[in-house]
Parts: sequence; structure tokens; C-alpha cells
Amino acid sequence: MSPARRLHGVKSSPVRDLLALTLRPEVISFAGGLPAPELFDVDGWADAFAKAATDRRNLQYGTTEGDPHLRAQLAARMTSKGVPTTESDLLVTTGSQQALTLATIALVEPGDVVAVEEPTYLAALQCFQLAGARVVPVASDDQGMVPSALAEVLTREKPTLVYVVPTFANPSGRTQPAARREEIAALAATHDTWLVEDDPYGELRYRGTPVPPLAAYGDKVLYLGSLSKIGAPGLRLGWLRAPKDLMPATVIAKQAADLHTSTIDQAAAATYLANTDLNAHVAALCTAYRERRDTMIKALPTTVPKGTEWTDPDGGMFVWLKLPDTTDTADLLKEALKHNVAFVPGAPFFATTPDNTTFRMSFTTNPPEEISEGMHRLATTFSSLT
Amino acid sequence: MSPARRLHGVKSSPVRDLLALTLRPEVISFAGGLPAPELFDVDGWADAFAKAATDRRNLQYGTTEGDPHLRAQLAARMTSKGVPTTESDLLVTTGSQQALTLATIALVEPGDVVAVEEPTYLAALQCFQLAGARVVPVASDDQGMVPSALAEVLTREKPTLVYVVPTFANPSGRTQPAARREEIAALAATHDTWLVEDDPYGELRYRGTPVPPLAAYGDKVLYLGSLSKIGAPGLRLGWLRAPKDLMPATVIAKQAADLHTSTIDQAAAATYLANTDLNAHVAALCTAYRERRDTMIKALPTTVPKGTEWTDPDGGMFVWLKLPDTTDTADLLKEALKHNVAFVPGAPFFATTPDNTTFRMSFTTNPPEEISEGMHRLATTFSSLT
Repeated sequence: MSPARRLHGVKSSPVRDLLALTLRPEVISFAGGLPAPELFDVDGWADAFAKAATDRRNLQYGTTEGDPHLRAQLAARMTSKGVPTTESDLLVTTGSQQALTLATIALVEPGDVVAVEEPTYLAALQCFQLAGARVVPVASDDQGMVPSALAEVLTREKPTLVYVVPTFANPSGRTQPAARREEIAALAATHDTWLVEDDPYGELRYRGTPVPPLAAYGDKVLYLGSLSKIGAPGLRLGWLRAPKDLMPATVIAKQAADLHTSTIDQAAAATYLANTDLNAHVAALCTAYRERRDTMIKALPTTVPKGTEWTDPDGGMFVWLKLPDTTDTADLLKEALKHNVAFVPGAPFFATTPDNTTFRMSFTTNPPEEISEGMHRLATTFSSLT
Repeated sequence: MSPARRLHGVKSSPVRDLLALTLRPEVISFAGGLPAPELFDVDGWADAFAKAATDRRNLQYGTTEGDPHLRAQLAARMTSKGVPTTESDLLVTTGSQQALTLATIALVEPGDVVAVEEPTYLAALQCFQLAGARVVPVASDDQGMVPSALAEVLTREKPTLVYVVPTFANPSGRTQPAARREEIAALAATHDTWLVEDDPYGELRYRGTPVPPLAAYGDKVLYLGSLSKIGAPGLRLGWLRAPKDLMPATVIAKQAADLHTSTIDQAAAATYLANTDLNAHVAALCTAYRERRDTMIKALPTTVPKGTEWTDPDGGMFVWLKLPDTTDTADLLKEALKHNVAFVPGAPFFATTPDNTTFRMSFTTNPPEEISEGMHRLATTFSSLT
């Protein structure tokens, strides 16, 4: 017998497959969505693990819901961002990717419709396809998902859930302003559908005023949080904030998925959050990433062909670009790799009809001088094509 | 909208719900399948984490397949147990529970049939129900799953996979002898179905000669391994050994599940395995658990009612019992908790028709003197009912 039929249509994540190619040390990669490793607080995490690993309770099984100290601190942080939250509203997950999978298992039946921004996070598309959902795109503009387009899809398709990355979206870098969040939350309430808000980047703001999460604007929101970008991704620590009615279903799904998230990683994170000024650390990250963002944006006009469009993100990790001609960015990537520079072609970020002239570049992984060199190589790549 | 319909039939794991009740410090619990925390190698793990946490690469994202050093060591250990294995045959998972879920996602479509031993691991039943499978039981005797019963089910039901815990089974404690493994592997090959071998307890043998895993007897086997019982469960480290053809599907399922397992936990485990004589540690565990097993088994004749039947396991964690009358062990548990002792009622371990007179007792969590006291309390519970 062969693998399950529904896997036939699901491709391995192109980003991950590409990472293999772009890992050659001579390549400057704008492909992966990796935080800068030199900015990790290694001393803080080493102290936290040294403490956690000497307590034998942290080597034992734990509860499915997660470490109460960690949940309390994550709840306090969410409350401080405008979403009143208690420990019992949260389930600790093995990264926010698992939170997305659990939300999907709890809500989506095979054949259900899931609505997404266009373009959207490709691993979310993969997750919905694995669940047997039919994915329907909703148009976005410079302020993210367009409410009138969402209203039309809600009426026509009656989706079970609507997936959004409202703040510094992957891949577009776009952010929904407060007024739009209000409209989208109201639409979800009117149409009795669930919003799944994926927010791994929300704290990485380089300019402008913070906007509260979508979860601050309505009750029909499942919020996915992550320590990967503000802490360290290697621990695979995320969380799901769900309405009380949905908690039992997500806990059952979590039991079947992995019983619970690493006890020792959770304990280390609880210690780390208790002993660290995370706001100061995030501010330092923002200072470093702002310079990287500016370096990439500033280099773009002399790098990409005239007429290329790109987003100008206020935060996060990504710039999203569209070429003015019909060049397929998958072909462009092959050329770019000859010049030892890499990005992600845009096609896999589309739910239905891909735009092959788009691509995504991450500015967080490399320091400014590497970004400048990478942009130079990209300019050379484009020159070589004309 | 309410949670997905297929969750309606899936109950929260009764073992986990019970753990809440049995966590009162005055209760001696034989309920959970927990390793003895005082036997954890805390110094070894503390050293391993101290080393892992000072390397910033261990805070970064990792590959979906897992840490190559860890995979190489797990492969060598499987090879030493009679199953020739290389690094590329293995996927590191977030506990063997995740390995089971990934195998299920890779193989099972909603509506498919899954065959299981009767009784079987209840979280496996939960996992198959979540996948929308129809679960069909196969009779077992003192040597585990009965080949003639399996042959009959394979012919009649054409299951997509057959789930077995062939060594020191949960909940029965039973072990398939080599000849039976050979028969079962041959049946799977003849009927072109997959065997999923769950082997978390295989190294915990207290008497008799080791039998190679079922995976040593045929190619149609997915093997689920775990460090939870021989290392520490808090790290949630398991692995899936799958035939080459199935690897891409399981990797895709793993990407959607949590991208990858904790980088730092994998690095710590790789260091731990490199620096530790794990065979010596397992031998020490077996010495301690053998005494606990013997203490429980020896106390049984004067604890349970005359005519009660129980298994006499050669290893693992569990004794499985059946009362001689019609007492419902769920009611018995309520009485037992009044006497501050606990076990798990047997009903949830049955796929279809529960036998309410059965129950499971774990002998690993408590030291011998606690086991003696717990058995005394259980005897008092039975006396109070007559």
C-alpha cells in the first residue's frame, strides 16, 4: 500500500527544500525566515537551562496544557499587549506551527472551506491541505486582507475558519490597521466563523505605533503566539489562546499530537522570562533588525529591474516583491544561486493561482554588510539576464 | 460554530484526567505510566544541557528530519537490537506519541480500518479515532496478538495498518515470542498491510532472553522508538523508523505538525548518549524495576479477590488484571481513592466492547515500600466492598 491519498497533493515545503541548497556557506541567503543567531541571548538561555536541568521534575512527564509558570507569564504578556488573558486561556504548544495544526484539527473537517489572505504563509496552506480543507483566497491590499473581499467570501463560501497574519505578514510584510481589524472581527462575528490569528512577528516593530492583536477586537479569534522570534526558535515554544468552549477539543488534539511540550524547555523558558527584561531584549532586536530592513530597502532601487514593486514593512522579517515582466522567479533563483545569493520564489504562497513573478526576501538573518553584498550579487544576477 | 464533529466521539484521555485526581500527595498511584523520577540520571542530563545550551546553533531552527548526531546514535542502538538501521531511516519525533500520529497521517484516510490488539494503548485508539479510522480489535492471548485472529481480520476487514505493542505491551504487559513475530510479519507481507510497532518498553526486561523487535522480521513495519523510559520523558524525544518509500510522507506530516523537534533537547540527548553508558543505566533501571515488579506480583494473592486473573510480565511497567465477579473497576477506583490508592480502569483500553472488570496497575513509579503500602490499601478497599 502507498501513502495516504491526500498526501499526494501536498508538497514538501519549498522553503525547507531550498534551505538545503542555500546552506552552502558561500551563499548569502534571504530565503529562510530565520532570526539572527548572533542576537540570541545565549547567556540568558544557558543560565535558564542550567537551572531547569538540575530539577528532576523537569525530566518527568508534564500536563498537556503546559507549565503553569510559563502560561502565567505568557498570559501576562498578552494582557500587556491589549488582549486580557489568564493562564487557563492558554495551551502551550510545540511551536506556533503546532498551535495552527491543533486549531485546524479542532475546527476543520475534510471538505470544509478555509479562507486565507493572498499571498499567505505556505506552511499554513500545507496544514489546511493535510486536513482535507478546500482553501479559498481573499484579496489583500497594502493594509492586508480586504474586508469587502472577505465579506464576499464569507457569504459565498461559508468558510469554517479564516486564517490571517495581521501584523507584518508572512510573506508580504503588511499590517492591518486598527480600523480594519475591527471590521474583520465584526465580519467573523456576523458570519459566525472563526478567525485564526497567527502572530509570530508582532513584537518586531521598527517604526510606527503598535496595533493591538486582532484578538483584542472580538471573541471569535484563536490566537497563535510564538517565542521563536523574540526568544529562540530551537526550543519550539508557542501557544494557543482559544475561547473557553474550544479548549477541551484543542487539549484532546494536543494529547494525540505529542502528549505535551518538552517539560525542560518550558521550565527553562519560564525561568528565562522571569529573569530577563524581555522588552529590553526585543528593543535590542528591533534596533538591529531596523538597520537590516533599511539596508535592504535602500538597496532595492539599484538592485531590481525598473518597475519592480515591493512592500515597505513596518516590522517583521520580510519584503515581498513583484517583477515588472514575466520572469519566473523560480528560474531567477537558479540564476541567483550561481551568484551565491538566494530568496524564495513566490508561487507556493498562493492558495490557488500562483503569481510566478513574485518573490520573498528576509532581511533578519544577515548583518547589514552581508545584506549589501547579497543585494550586489542579486543586481549582478539581474544584469546577467538582460 | 462548534468544534469539528469527529472530536465529539473522542474522549480526553482518561489516564490524564485521572492523573489530576491521583496527584494528591497522600495518594499512592499505580495509575500513570510514569518512570521513577528518582532513577533519572539528573547529573548526566544537567551536564548534557549545560553543554548544549552554550552553543547558539542549538537555539536556532533545525532540520525536520532531526539532529544528525542523535539520529546516528539511535540508528546504532537499533542496529545493536537486531534491526539494521542507518541515520536516513530515522525521523526524530516529539515523543513516540508524535511518531504514532505521523505514521497515522501518512497512511490512514478517514474511513480506513485500523486493527489493534485487544486490549491496547488508549492514546493510540484516540489517535486513530481522530484520523477518522474505524478501529477493529484482534484477540490476544498470553503471547500477545493471535496470528489466526489477525489473519481473519486481515482477510475480512483489509486494514490499512495493524498497531501492535509486541514487547511488554501497554496495558497487558504481554510479549510476543520470536515465532509469533515471524508469523505476524509474514501475514502483513502476504496481505500487503503495514505493521506499526510501538516499542517504548522493549529495553526494560527483568527476566528471560531479549526478542528482536518485530521490525527485524519484515519490511512492512514502521517502528516507533522512545527515550522516555530509558532516558527521560520530559524531553519528548522519540523516533520513527520507516521504509524509504514512506519517509517523504512522514517528513511532510512532521513539517505541518511542528516543523521539527526541539533543537536543544536533541543536542542534549546526542551529547548524553555519547557521554553515557546507556546499557549500564538501563541495567540499573531494570534492577530497581524488577524488585518493584516482584513486590507487586508477590502481594497480589493477598490483595485482590480470589479468582482474579493477572498477567505476569517479563518487563515493562504494567500488570493487567481481571476481577472474578461483575464489579465495575471505575466504581472500584472511586472506592480506592477514598483509601488513597489508585489504578486505571480497563474499559478505555478496548476498541469496541469494553470489559469493565479489568484494570491496569503500574509498578515502576513507586519504590517497593510504597508499593507494599499501596497494595495494603487496595486490599482494604476490596474488604470494604464485601
